[in-house]
Amino acid sequence: MTETTAPTWLPQHDPLATADPDADIHEWLAGWRRRAGMRVDVVPLAGLRGWRQDADTGVLAHGSGRFFRVEGLSVEVPGAAVPRWDQPVLHQPEVGILGLLARRDGDTLRVLVQAKAEPGNQDGHQIAPTVQATRSNWTGVHGGRPVPFLHHFRDPDPRRVLVDVRQSEHGSWFLRKRNRNMVVLTDEDIVPPPGFRWLSLAQLHRLLRHDDLVNMDTRTVLSCLPTELTARAAGPAQDAFTAALRRSCRPGTGSRHRTGELLHWITDVRSRTEVGADRTALRGRAAWHLGEVSLRHDSGLFFEVIGVDVDAEGREVASWSQPMLRPCGQGVVAFLATRLDGVLHVLAHARVEAGFVDVVELAPTVQCTPATLDYLPAAARPPFLDQVLGAPPERVRFRAVLSEEGGRLYRARSSYLVVETDDADLESDQYRWVTLHQVSELLRHSNYVNVSARSLIACLRGLLDAA
Amino acid sequence: MTETTAPTWLPQHDPLATADPDADIHEWLAGWRRRAGMRVDVVPLAGLRGWRQDADTGVLAHGSGRFFRVEGLSVEVPGAAVPRWDQPVLHQPEVGILGLLARRDGDTLRVLVQAKAEPGNQDGHQIAPTVQATRSNWTGVHGGRPVPFLHHFRDPDPRRVLVDVRQSEHGSWFLRKRNRNMVVLTDEDIVPPPGFRWLSLAQLHRLLRHDDLVNMDTRTVLSCLPTELTARAAGPAQDAFTAALRRSCRPGTGSRHRTGELLHWITDVRSRTEVGADRTALRGRAAWHLGEVSLRHDSGLFFEVIGVDVDAEGREVASWSQPMLRPCGQGVVAFLATRLDGVLHVLAHARVEAGFVDVVELAPTVQCTPATLDYLPAAARPPFLDQVLGAPPERVRFRAVLSEEGGRLYRARSSYLVVETDDADLESDQYRWVTLHQVSELLRHSNYVNVSARSLIACLRGLLDAA
Repeated sequence: MTETTAPTWLPQHDPLATADPDADIHEWLAGWRRRAGMRVDVVPLAGLRGWRQDADTGVLAHGSGRFFRVEGLSVEVPGAAVPRWDQPVLHQPEVGILGLLARRDGDTLRVLVQAKAEPGNQDGHQIAPTVQATRSNWTGVHGGRPVPFLHHFRDPDPRRVLVDVRQSEHGSWFLRKRNRNMVVLTDEDIVPPPGFRWLSLAQLHRLLRHDDLVNMDTRTVLSCLPTELTARAAGPAQDAFTAALRRSCRPGTGSRHRTGELLHWITDVRSRTEVGADRTALRGRAAWHLGEVSLRHDSGLFFEVIGVDVDAEGREVASWSQPMLRPCGQGVVAFLATRLDGVLHVLAHARVEAGFVDVVELAPTVQCTPATLDYLPAAARPPFLDQVLGAPPERVRFRAVLSEEGGRLYRARSSYLVVETDDADLESDQYRWVTLHQVSELLRHSNYVNVSARSLIACLRGLLDAA
Repeated sequence: MTETTAPTWLPQHDPLATADPDADIHEWLAGWRRRAGMRVDVVPLAGLRGWRQDADTGVLAHGSGRFFRVEGLSVEVPGAAVPRWDQPVLHQPEVGILGLLARRDGDTLRVLVQAKAEPGNQDGHQIAPTVQATRSNWTGVHGGRPVPFLHHFRDPDPRRVLVDVRQSEHGSWFLRKRNRNMVVLTDEDIVPPPGFRWLSLAQLHRLLRHDDLVNMDTRTVLSCLPTELTARAAGPAQDAFTAALRRSCRPGTGSRHRTGELLHWITDVRSRTEVGADRTALRGRAAWHLGEVSLRHDSGLFFEVIGVDVDAEGREVASWSQPMLRPCGQGVVAFLATRLDGVLHVLAHARVEAGFVDVVELAPTVQCTPATLDYLPAAARPPFLDQVLGAPPERVRFRAVLSEEGGRLYRARSSYLVVETDDADLESDQYRWVTLHQVSELLRHSNYVNVSARSLIACLRGLLDAA
């Protein structure tokens, strides 16, 4: 099995370079990684325990009819660099809960996180939200143990709900998948059970800078917190960049475009773009090969669907089998950022993903898997990719290799970067400069900001908390 | 052919009861109704000119593949009073533009409207927005004349765009249909061509009180104007109700729930509600009969799909044939309203319609077709219907019989009512008191407020302009 490795152009994070105020958290997580292992064996896709493959279509579904299905998707985007393709897709109609329990402690906001292993994770345990559960988890379809803390999110006091919004997941891999992102305040004096721990928002922000440490679900929930709240909690600005970042988080500071203009732009792109995405059989998709072992693209690129057997301690269910999607190659997820009148703006891309509910969502300036570009037509090479990869080190304001969701995705990792530029003249039909406060306003609603952008916004905002 | 008539419990509007400051507008519209007739003949559905019926499925589509299709829809809403049904549905994926050109004239906002006939309209011409065009209109699929004023909406100066948002249409009749609602400011000194006319917002507001006069497309675009803007333009408050209405339009005035709480409630209802809506064949739907003449329900209720031949003067195309959906019976669309701390609130219903993009949208307190209720189980009788129909006349703050969209719907009409109540204790899982400003905030985004609620909000807000 091929292991994904970081390309050489990416300097690796060195946690020993400075004294780390969060050493005890790293030690706590390392302890869980040592103690409670999760054994994941890659096994042939055909004959996965509990899963059925339709003889005609090849569609993979769980015997219970719940969880998720692997289906085919036939996509048309007239006028795009690749106007038409077939692909497998994960179809998971049920909406899960990603819930973070929070407590005010004077001016400090503390959140309850857990050390959670997922079969797809690079290093086993990562920092996860308080609750990370699909409906199948809590309705007991898989006959497992109850989900701790779930009741805080199932029927909360509405006045204590800081965040409650359904957000999309990777639209190139999932068909209209959405999770409910929630942050709920509690007054209860909760002593964390084993595997759980209170962290301040500042601590969590600092941990975002470490590779494969804070999981995707935590990052997306964090991104939905109102910017005012995260910026208020942070310490004093250290430099002009941080000062501009803080201004970017404040409502009412100058933005290149009024929010109404951004909404007009999004409506316009959505109205001009036609996307057809029809669910189809898995068998017989052009360029895809469904074998006994796995489902893969003839080029060996994009992704493959594999099978895994999982043995886990400390989970609701101790062992199971499932298909997983394994991306071929590490992704690049990057925002270009610039200061306009002293306010930091990021260059948002109105991006089509076939699995989106509403045509386009705002994505990072660059979001791609460089390994696939040799296979695709030259016009499919993302604008700004070379600018991001060739940026001088002092303009790189954030850099970490972070894991994508590990419950369905196997070793999916991307380099997350924020690169500063002085060139503000980069807008075109599909790109606009936006402030973090504007992104935050949009994040109160579904279908506006994709999961990669949300992750990176959480990381960028986290820079307000000094190391 | 059966004509829909108003039930006897509805007093008819009498335009002669008071001197009408808008008499010249009525005369202008009446002139168009007399002069430029549109001849509409109901003809058999089979063999409609230019349309093809699939031999196996019965699905009706235009020979060009554009415009719209009549398909079958198989719906499941587990736990609902009617948990499962089949129905025909209009499928029109293309997004049209409903555009209102506006001009500031001191404190007055003027909008350019047109007298427009639609085949489904009760009385031929009604007041329509500046532009009302499907993509097929402006891309010339039907080989017609260019659409006047379209360029103002196709590539506007973003700073002059007051409204640009895609909003849903009747989700019980259309599958995920959306139109782009736009208001664009102009400085140009436009002399209206024949059939067009500048009206002040106050004039348009007053016209909303007349039966079948201001068309649905105008009402939905009006509803998307920011409340501040409409309330600022209006005259002084005449009574406590109007004062409470005006406060309801102002940002920052006291509301029963914070907007964040409303978003939490909507997310919660959407997460708890499962809706399955699968496109299917038209032939073989339980309880529906597809004949030569029409497609109708065995009960004679709900709606039928009929064919029409249209001969029109003054249209882009002078004659054509098409299927239309004819509702059986007049609808009731009503908000209960109450004053909470001197601020008017309306009781919004989180309502499932099978054709919605995102499970539920906020609807009026009552939205139904009373004639169908005898056929449905008792549990399907809408809460508050009797309260609305039995309200004493002095509590009825708004009442008019208004036409629904006349391009696809044949003689579709509803009684629109706003009924005041002193009983504020009416909330339950699916009902919440909201201010008009909160509705206005939600209307900046898609998928929140359904077309019936939008129509009625425009009417209610229009009461701020004294007769």
